[in-house]
Amino acid sequence: MSSTDLVDQHCHGVLRQGPVDTAHFGSLLTESDAPPAPGTSHFDSQLGFAVRRWCAPVLDLPANCPPDDYLARRRELGTPEVTRRLLRAAGLSTLLVDTGLPGDLLTPAELAEAAGAPAHEIIRLETLAEAVADRDPDAAAFPDRLAEAVAEAARTAVAFKSIAAYRHGLALDPTPPTGAELRAAAGHWLADRRPGGRLTDPVLLRHLLWSAAESGLPLQIHTGFGDPDLRLPDADPLLLTDFVRAVRPTGCRLVLLHCYPYHRGAGYLAAVHPHVYADVGLTLGHTGARSRAVLAEALELTPFGKLLFSTDAYGLPELYLVGSRSFTAGLGELLDGWVKDGSWAPADAARVAALLGGGNARRLYGLPGA
Amino acid sequence: MSSTDLVDQHCHGVLRQGPVDTAHFGSLLTESDAPPAPGTSHFDSQLGFAVRRWCAPVLDLPANCPPDDYLARRRELGTPEVTRRLLRAAGLSTLLVDTGLPGDLLTPAELAEAAGAPAHEIIRLETLAEAVADRDPDAAAFPDRLAEAVAEAARTAVAFKSIAAYRHGLALDPTPPTGAELRAAAGHWLADRRPGGRLTDPVLLRHLLWSAAESGLPLQIHTGFGDPDLRLPDADPLLLTDFVRAVRPTGCRLVLLHCYPYHRGAGYLAAVHPHVYADVGLTLGHTGARSRAVLAEALELTPFGKLLFSTDAYGLPELYLVGSRSFTAGLGELLDGWVKDGSWAPADAARVAALLGGGNARRLYGLPGA
Amino acid sequence: MSSTDLVDQHCHGVLRQGPVDTAHFGSLLTESDAPPAPGTSHFDSQLGFAVRRWCAPVLDLPANCPPDDYLARRRELGTPEVTRRLLRAAGLSTLLVDTGLPGDLLTPAELAEAAGAPAHEIIRLETLAEAVADRDPDAAAFPDRLAEAVAEAARTAVAFKSIAAYRHGLALDPTPPTGAELRAAAGHWLADRRPGGRLTDPVLLRHLLWSAAESGLPLQIHTGFGDPDLRLPDADPLLLTDFVRAVRPTGCRLVLLHCYPYHRGAGYLAAVHPHVYADVGLTLGHTGARSRAVLAEALELTPFGKLLFSTDAYGLPELYLVGSRSFTAGLGELLDGWVKDGSWAPADAARVAALLGGGNARRLYGLPGA
Repeated sequence: MSSTDLVDQHCHGVLRQGPVDTAHFGSLLTESDAPPAPGTSHFDSQLGFAVRRWCAPVLDLPANCPPDDYLARRRELGTPEVTRRLLRAAGLSTLLVDTGLPGDLLTPAELAEAAGAPAHEIIRLETLAEAVADRDPDAAAFPDRLAEAVAEAARTAVAFKSIAAYRHGLALDPTPPTGAELRAAAGHWLADRRPGGRLTDPVLLRHLLWSAAESGLPLQIHTGFGDPDLRLPDADPLLLTDFVRAVRPTGCRLVLLHCYPYHRGAGYLAAVHPHVYADVGLTLGHTGARSRAVLAEALELTPFGKLLFSTDAYGLPELYLVGSRSFTAGLGELLDGWVKDGSWAPADAARVAALLGGGNARRLYGLPGA
Repeated sequence: MSSTDLVDQHCHGVLRQGPVDTAHFGSLLTESDAPPAPGTSHFDSQLGFAVRRWCAPVLDLPANCPPDDYLARRRELGTPEVTRRLLRAAGLSTLLVDTGLPGDLLTPAELAEAAGAPAHEIIRLETLAEAVADRDPDAAAFPDRLAEAVAEAARTAVAFKSIAAYRHGLALDPTPPTGAELRAAAGHWLADRRPGGRLTDPVLLRHLLWSAAESGLPLQIHTGFGDPDLRLPDADPLLLTDFVRAVRPTGCRLVLLHCYPYHRGAGYLAAVHPHVYADVGLTLGHTGARSRAVLAEALELTPFGKLLFSTDAYGLPELYLVGSRSFTAGLGELLDGWVKDGSWAPADAARVAALLGGGNARRLYGLPGA
Repeated sequence: MSSTDLVDQHCHGVLRQGPVDTAHFGSLLTESDAPPAPGTSHFDSQLGFAVRRWCAPVLDLPANCPPDDYLARRRELGTPEVTRRLLRAAGLSTLLVDTGLPGDLLTPAELAEAAGAPAHEIIRLETLAEAVADRDPDAAAFPDRLAEAVAEAARTAVAFKSIAAYRHGLALDPTPPTGAELRAAAGHWLADRRPGGRLTDPVLLRHLLWSAAESGLPLQIHTGFGDPDLRLPDADPLLLTDFVRAVRPTGCRLVLLHCYPYHRGAGYLAAVHPHVYADVGLTLGHTGARSRAVLAEALELTPFGKLLFSTDAYGLPELYLVGSRSFTAGLGELLDGWVKDGSWAPADAARVAALLGGGNARRLYGLPGA
């Protein structure tokens, strides 16, 4: 695969300090909130193995070295150097950073500096709405304050992001709420809310989706697996079918993130709806040696102009490198196989690699070089 | 794979004239009703690549030649010659043609002529019922008129076909409607129907399924993906579980068409219910270089006497060749692999190839050579 | 794969006599209750082919020999010799036997003798409750009698097993029933029950799950495909999401059995919930030459300390050997591939093979050598 343009279309900050110890590192290698099975560690997963495979050499260790050696070397080098090395090695040419996650994380500008590549911001809708409510808990003012915040965000961000899948599930009424519904829902939510309180009201979640849809920016939506906060069937992207149809006239482009194990359904939506795109972001790193197989499934129905690359990296800079290598190595092997057996022409493989790696994202988000 | 008997157990007519231009051709390469992603074309998909791979050589071009070259050569040869070449190259020995789709399409007899193989008709139930209603919109007479039409169709057709998945979804009451329910539903439907109006009433759709089930002919049911008219979860073949059970005493054989991405569930139904068969028709062409992988999944639980071949070709003769080649090449590679690693005996592979390619269909539909 | 410790964590007795004839043998090769497609036999499936591949050599026949040769040789050797040969060849080091199935089956002690390996008992909850009701149909006494039976079973068994998926489906209220609900449900069930009557009441099924959860033993739950008694979507392990959360504080370990085609969802549950384990037991034999592919999918999200091995063998000793070989051969090829392409270190592959083959089960069930 000759493409050298890699646009990470969905990622997050990494920890400024740390992780503090082995257990902390392990906790960032899993979507679980709990210890691993007795006698094993969170390194005992496809993601854990993939970290040892891809990251160890970048820290001057042999690939697949033992976890303890890896963590010792990591401490020796220090977080800033490890972060810089791993982010550079990821070979990203642009980062689109969802800044809505908590923690003492590097900012997009700091990530850009470490990666040696420009970073742009994605605004997480629920975090935005919660910040509006924190600043001004007046329910009557909330709709206007929120509209202002969305408009302001749209001036600098490249996309919005929804985690409605976590907060309620994707089985939402597909239509925009009326003004009266919105006011009632805001009143209800803000009546007993304390600062930092989560937005889980389905009317407000829908309103956020529609606010983003009407902003002109692409709207990324978490679908598929994630942490245990999620009921997986409620995150099936096919639950968005009616919303996909309803939102089409606004011109909004929808990006289905992650999607696993529903990535084939996501591919169908991308195939038949002109405004639907998909990635298998989070999935790539978490499935490690199997990421090629998952990517192959995503490449069944998804048109080649609709599939995107992302790492969904968060917390650990390792996740940037693992996501990037899983994608480039996995896609490279797939395409080589198809060229070798005569299914595809070499020039087609190169062109599709360039579209998936960066071209589709540049076009979708209006990035330089599109 | 040495089988030379290929029974296409579900296909459609191809355009008598055209397609008229590149955009029209592209629109027939996708289930979408909309343009491709900007900067790409509908050729940028597994199906588009598969057309260039398999069809270009039949038009005297190198495999995987550029789309423009392909379309230019197509215009040069003219539709009749292209149709004849591609249909002959598909190597079909029998075609079972669903004639219920609109458009200026070749008839089964014309397809047979072009393919050099006999063609039999499959009657689409909803189209049949709509034609009955067009001829005689009298609600009181409708049940009898419909019964006559079904009986007449059963005299010459080899199977019925239902697209209830599109019209309502497969989550239908599994029992046959009563006479009173049928009369009420017919009254309701015909009261405000104009000629050509679609049948979407769930009572009438159920009635059609039961009418077909009691006809003695196999009943093909669209399941899985299709055009954007469909809500994919409503087309999950597992929604038919109770209908499958209810209809078993009638002796009706059910054929689950396409099934993707629910083909493993379809395989389960075929494995445990003696009257259930399945194919992955439409899926083969649309997944192109991945069709072998999908076929492999269909071959997990589906008994070898229950899986069928079809192309679901429609509009473009290319879809006949792509479906046929995807099936024979994909199955051939799978079986070769299993023979090579000692899993299967060579004679078993040859026998299974013959069953899937044509033997199962000959037996199921009572075709010559069964 | 160098592991020689194979703990079959879920299996059943095999027939003491028989099968009596070819049709009977075939009926034990399928989950169907009906004849195969005309012109084929129940040997015409991945499982049937896998039996011929793996078992024929153990009966001194060439691999993949014709079914008739296989059955003739089987008759010649006699059931006890065939059973002994196949069970020994399966190479099991421990068997965990669900004794809740009907039929004249070998006991765990007899299986242990034939296999040359210790066997422990798994108690099927529904069978246990039905036996309690058979012995004492007094509804008022039922809750206490059942509690005593569960406690007694827990003294010697290594696990409980639920087939709620068959009896009602897994969409159960996730909370434990109250005493009043339990008494009412017991009254209702026992009021018109005859000896042997099945337990299908959802309140009683939930009560069984909670009784097992509070026993301290691991609780195995049937999920995914099985015989036609099952509505497959009702057996999706993700339906257990809320139960998984509710039961976590009890310390109960849950084992999702079989899971196909929902094994990726099961892997997600195992990845994010510390007390969830999974196997693909029944699936391995039934998918034959495809078992490696299914195992690979199970190894995407499931942590390596959470995936277990089982055969789910029942009725035929062949199913022990096929399950065992499908697992060891399939896993071996997968791991070899990952080592060869540099994804995994050889020592990692060996360690994961040992965990999956037996280590995880030894730890989970507290078996010697854990």
